[in-house]
Amino acid sequence: MEREVALNIVKKQLKTARYEHTKRVMETALKLADHYNADQKKVELSAIFHDYAKYRNHDEMKRWIIAEKLPQDLLEYHPELWHGPVGSKMIEREVGLKDLEVSSAIYWHTTGKRNMSLMDQIIFIADYIEPGRDFPGVDDVRAVVYDDIDKACWMAAKNTIQFLLSKNASIYPDTFQLYNERIVKEQESKN
Amino acid sequence: MEREVALNIVKKQLKTARYEHTKRVMETALKLADHYNADQKKVELSAIFHDYAKYRNHDEMKRWIIAEKLPQDLLEYHPELWHGPVGSKMIEREVGLKDLEVSSAIYWHTTGKRNMSLMDQIIFIADYIEPGRDFPGVDDVRAVVYDDIDKACWMAAKNTIQFLLSKNASIYPDTFQLYNERIVKEQESKN
Repeated sequence: MEREVALNIVKKQLKTARYEHTKRVMETALKLADHYNADQKKVELSAIFHDYAKYRNHDEMKRWIIAEKLPQDLLEYHPELWHGPVGSKMIEREVGLKDLEVSSAIYWHTTGKRNMSLMDQIIFIADYIEPGRDFPGVDDVRAVVYDDIDKACWMAAKNTIQFLLSKNASIYPDTFQLYNERIVKEQESKN
Repeated sequence: MEREVALNIVKKQLKTARYEHTKRVMETALKLADHYNADQKKVELSAIFHDYAKYRNHDEMKRWIIAEKLPQDLLEYHPELWHGPVGSKMIEREVGLKDLEVSSAIYWHTTGKRNMSLMDQIIFIADYIEPGRDFPGVDDVRAVVYDDIDKACWMAAKNTIQFLLSKNASIYPDTFQLYNERIVKEQESKN
């Protein structure tokens, strides 16, 4: 699918500011794809469609979670977490874009998880560091992302967990597993 | 088993300061048991034996984790987490103290978990707030523990997670689930 076609599809789903964010995620992700030798076309499509489901209403997303047999524990967590998993299915069914790697990158872009693919990591971290983002710690992540994307994702997960704790918000298990993954590997080799 | 007999058994397993800590945990736990109408005798034994395995060496604890078929993911985490689960088995095999509620309270006293029994909570929180403890946030937990032991355990879990994050240490999944449990219940009712 051509970039302009994809952008036009997604533009109808998003508010203006979110569409501008999407284009910045795309540009950031493409730079990372170039640096890390990822598939440019798949990264482009994943970035363009990552927030496809963002403005669907909660009841509709809930129906998709049930109908598509997505993990039902999503329903116990904040609806903000639903648009990734739901979007990964919507682009298959509504857009006809069926690519497991693209769907995976869209699925995990908000929560992260352990054992992310390079493409999962690129979309997750591009969404986190695109130039419009401005929150404590984001520059530290930008400073390492071209040297060590694993570490950048870990830092983002840690930052996110600290932010959620400060708000007394729940933390989705996969985010927490992404944080643990790096430390557990080191610990296991010591034990 | 009489209190003095139990204390004498555990005294041989512990350094002096840890034995003094154990007695303070026992006193704190018995006050909570009285307040919350928990079984005094079982709380007493759980408190006395909670750190029974604390000073066993790592290789020995590792063998128990494997032989007793305790969760093998313990081996991926810091050995500090092992003495609870291992202790719960050692008191059955070495002391002959076979009580599922006592073993459970010992098992979970370091990590906590979701769906703790009242006895699990009493030992977990008595260990956290006994008068010898002095760290940021402990007085806030002491202030609520007689009104709302659920909330006290949640605060302790949150504090522990924040502390572990600040040290870039891994967080055992059950600790994190104890933190999430309270928030997830509220969120689920909203969704």
